[in-house]
Amino acid sequence: MKLSAVKKLFVGSPLATAQARHERLSKPSALAVFSSDALSSVAYATEEILLVLILAGTAALTFSIPIGIAIAVLIAVVVSSYRQTILAYPQGGGAYIVTKDNLGTLPSLVSAGALLIDYVLTVAVSVAAGVAAITSAFPSLYDYRILLGVLFIAGIATVNLRGLRESGNLFALPTYLFVASFSGMLVYGFVRWFAGGEAPPPVAEVTVTHDLTIFLVLRAFASGCAALTGVEAVSDGVPAFRPPEARNARVVLAWLGLILIGLFMGITFLARHYHVVPRLEETVVSQLARIVFGGGLLYYEIQVVTMFILVFAANTAFADFPRLAYFLARDGFIPRQFGTRGDRLVFSNGILILGGLAALLLLLFGGATHALIPLYAVGVFLSFTLSQTSMVRRWISRREEGWRWRWPLNALGAGTTGLVMLVIAVTKFSHGAWMVVLLIPLLVALFLMIRRHYADVAHQLSLDNYGGPPPIDLTVLVLVGDLHRGVAAALRYAQALSTSVKAVYVELDPERTQKLEEKWGKFGLGVPLVVLTSPYRSLLTPFLDYVNHLLALGENHVVTIVIPEFVPARWWQHLLHNQTALLIKGALLFRKGVVVVDVPFHLR
Amino acid sequence: MKLSAVKKLFVGSPLATAQARHERLSKPSALAVFSSDALSSVAYATEEILLVLILAGTAALTFSIPIGIAIAVLIAVVVSSYRQTILAYPQGGGAYIVTKDNLGTLPSLVSAGALLIDYVLTVAVSVAAGVAAITSAFPSLYDYRILLGVLFIAGIATVNLRGLRESGNLFALPTYLFVASFSGMLVYGFVRWFAGGEAPPPVAEVTVTHDLTIFLVLRAFASGCAALTGVEAVSDGVPAFRPPEARNARVVLAWLGLILIGLFMGITFLARHYHVVPRLEETVVSQLARIVFGGGLLYYEIQVVTMFILVFAANTAFADFPRLAYFLARDGFIPRQFGTRGDRLVFSNGILILGGLAALLLLLFGGATHALIPLYAVGVFLSFTLSQTSMVRRWISRREEGWRWRWPLNALGAGTTGLVMLVIAVTKFSHGAWMVVLLIPLLVALFLMIRRHYADVAHQLSLDNYGGPPPIDLTVLVLVGDLHRGVAAALRYAQALSTSVKAVYVELDPERTQKLEEKWGKFGLGVPLVVLTSPYRSLLTPFLDYVNHLLALGENHVVTIVIPEFVPARWWQHLLHNQTALLIKGALLFRKGVVVVDVPFHLR
Repeated sequence: MKLSAVKKLFVGSPLATAQARHERLSKPSALAVFSSDALSSVAYATEEILLVLILAGTAALTFSIPIGIAIAVLIAVVVSSYRQTILAYPQGGGAYIVTKDNLGTLPSLVSAGALLIDYVLTVAVSVAAGVAAITSAFPSLYDYRILLGVLFIAGIATVNLRGLRESGNLFALPTYLFVASFSGMLVYGFVRWFAGGEAPPPVAEVTVTHDLTIFLVLRAFASGCAALTGVEAVSDGVPAFRPPEARNARVVLAWLGLILIGLFMGITFLARHYHVVPRLEETVVSQLARIVFGGGLLYYEIQVVTMFILVFAANTAFADFPRLAYFLARDGFIPRQFGTRGDRLVFSNGILILGGLAALLLLLFGGATHALIPLYAVGVFLSFTLSQTSMVRRWISRREEGWRWRWPLNALGAGTTGLVMLVIAVTKFSHGAWMVVLLIPLLVALFLMIRRHYADVAHQLSLDNYGGPPPIDLTVLVLVGDLHRGVAAALRYAQALSTSVKAVYVELDPERTQKLEEKWGKFGLGVPLVVLTSPYRSLLTPFLDYVNHLLALGENHVVTIVIPEFVPARWWQHLLHNQTALLIKGALLFRKGVVVVDVPFHLR
Repeated sequence: MKLSAVKKLFVGSPLATAQARHERLSKPSALAVFSSDALSSVAYATEEILLVLILAGTAALTFSIPIGIAIAVLIAVVVSSYRQTILAYPQGGGAYIVTKDNLGTLPSLVSAGALLIDYVLTVAVSVAAGVAAITSAFPSLYDYRILLGVLFIAGIATVNLRGLRESGNLFALPTYLFVASFSGMLVYGFVRWFAGGEAPPPVAEVTVTHDLTIFLVLRAFASGCAALTGVEAVSDGVPAFRPPEARNARVVLAWLGLILIGLFMGITFLARHYHVVPRLEETVVSQLARIVFGGGLLYYEIQVVTMFILVFAANTAFADFPRLAYFLARDGFIPRQFGTRGDRLVFSNGILILGGLAALLLLLFGGATHALIPLYAVGVFLSFTLSQTSMVRRWISRREEGWRWRWPLNALGAGTTGLVMLVIAVTKFSHGAWMVVLLIPLLVALFLMIRRHYADVAHQLSLDNYGGPPPIDLTVLVLVGDLHRGVAAALRYAQALSTSVKAVYVELDPERTQKLEEKWGKFGLGVPLVVLTSPYRSLLTPFLDYVNHLLALGENHVVTIVIPEFVPARWWQHLLHNQTALLIKGALLFRKGVVVVDVPFHLR
């Protein structure tokens, strides 16, 4: 039971089903758990905007201000829109559920595919950016960035396998520390700005490779939209709130929106004022903190806190991916294994798969945030759009209280996010968005294929119009290569199963057959011995021929093959024995009308 | 049966046991098969000598002549000594057999360990040198040298899996082509020398890093001793000769010795005369051929033929390794699987293991001949020494015809090879010989451990003083998660095995239990249903507790657990079903008193 001890050490003791109800989050805890994804994106969103604008020279960086304002408005629209969703879906209004309810199966699968991809990318991007925060402060760690990323993913997965409430407590500290530290940095930066302190540092020269076109500005805007990722997490997780769930979730989402807009706009304005130019070796936030605090302890605090919020941001995906997988599994679109809670009341399979895929992505893209960002936003905005459109349809068809002013709000959200999605898909297509555009229909096709398989199996297993299983003619064969105590025990076992047992021996060497027959008389327990000849020294072929011959005797024949197998005391000793049993099992596995039974004989 | 078609394509149709006798070799064929290892070493032996001497500057290269003469004498001594062995061991006188016969188990295991290592090294070194011959002629292939080496190994292994006689025919052409081409090159080179043609090219300057000490000369001699590897192959393979086996083998061994001395001395003298200086990018033979033939078609012919003989030299090991493994397996020192002939009358397991290990070695050492050479010769000379010492002991104790003059001959061989072994071990210790010195005792310990295990198992399985197997109290449990056609079929099967069948259901959700019980009344075939509760949602724990409870009821209780399992029509559909059956099997595998039976239900 060593393995279970290891599991207990990392994952904790099992929790009883009855404990499920108490795993609920207070508002401050919920803000910490569900906001880290959205808030953490301020660590890279401004940088992504500047990275595109800089292609047209340092003068173009001035466009970061109008782009930042546009994104802030977009955040306000999306947050208002999602607050309507929470009201209508107190049981958890993820895009999949909402779309399925109002637009039907196919659109809901599109949004599910988009979301699953996004959750994986959330983990990969957040962890990559968190590692970048650390390597900005400690450049000597740069060479270990992929290893660090994978270790962080493993750590977060472990925390999540332990269960949700413990996660809430664990994550509250860094989230609030992040909000406090960044607010402090921004206030201090603005105070110095308005106090008219020393002049901003001179702007470095850059190579201009692009003209400042509308397309480039739109591409910068599309990059900055990474700031919105994770906003939907609150409305997905309503059932995790303490009652009254919907009201608490709406309050938390409003808080989240305000904090997000404040931090994002603050960084964008300060970065512009202090002439921060994006560089690959150091993040924009790191440069800004260095300018504002002039290096020193507070600078390092900002970097560490950024790392924590980003690495912990991945946690939002670890809460949402398994939950969405559960819904999809329940509806039969992905394997059923995702629908079972583990013994810590969490969906362990979803957590493990998510961690594995994100780590793989990190390895494939060399641990670089910028390479992953273009894959990121298309899916997010696709699911935003589908979800808001569903809400419009819902208000209009149900005409519930306030529907007259609620549907235009959701329509505004749907229209805006739809437009943004198109902008992202077009401007980022060649930078990686094409992969997501390709993957989503593939996933939808897979979902449908899996559902058809389950429906087909259910039909084949159905008890409707079932007359009961057919009768069975049982033949028990014991496959022997010699006669010793292990074989004798297997013969005894076979006799306990059936009165018509035969032993089968494949002759490779006539001398040995004679010796075997001599022993058989004394210790064969009266079981008849069938000897099959094998001119080509193959054990398998004559035996399979014999089994086929028996199967041909009757429709309802089931041949049970008993194979005596030693079980050595130590694992390596298995290598010292012929793997005949394995070979036979492999050859007969899944053969209709054949059941293979190993009878172990335990060696000391 | 697709796999067997592929096997047939590469390996050929099975051969009947009765065909074994006809797979014998004529003298010319035997020379081709058993000499390629020994002869091919002339392609690198001279080079290995020069590579050491050059460390003391170009003037030191003059010592290659006395070293070459010493090695030629050594070849003559070893060949004479082995001709005695053939006489005494017409059934095949490998060092293992001879040592076991005369010196006992432990020395024989030492020589067996040394030989197994050497066979692997023969394959790796020969293939690496063969690839070097090609990359000397076609430098653009240098980057693919490891891939080429692995492909050659795979090719030789395939040929050997087809069987010996076909190998003999296949290998005759390149061996004789090699002997003819090299003889031609040497004759032409000597003719030009004595005709006093143009002067040899000027000698390039080299960096002198070592003084010319006795130790360095001994180290050069030790490197050159690689020329002797493979000389023993003939005496190992006597039974493969056409009758009279011993006489034919002695004749072939004498031919081999003469050809080997001639080619080796010729290359050493010519290389000295034409001032060939060893370079890593081009082999000595390649340089010599370029000088003698001045490039052109004949130069390329020499390189291609060298490649062929070297790559085919590995074949000697593919004949000997499986044969030695067979003897060791028969005596219980290595896993028994090496003792069985495959369906082409060859020892397939030995061939596959040898190919795999050699390819691994090639990968680990980056495909470089020079890196592998120091590991090579210690084992060869260790087994030479043990084998000759055994012969001395044999002549003296048996006093057969001619023993008075035969034992001093073998004693000379034993003394010389023993001395050479010490020289190699000391001068090459830090260059890699230490690995072999370490590995041989480890292998011997492993052999002894395996033998002890087999003896122990045989004792435990022995029918001496055996009163027959104990009686069995059989309980059959069907583990169910639901009731459908698959489960019903499994219940029917269980009823055919025993009259006391129980179905066991682990309750994860009381609602489902109620539904199950309703269906059970109608389709449960009268089998009683045991419901186990599971507060922690674990399927396994309550079930294992129940099984343990049953096992505790009686000494002779055997619990047979029937698990209904669907078999989907396509392999990927397995991923869509809970792997519960696998989990249960894993948990109960090798549990005493438990037999697990999957009953497949085949889906369309």
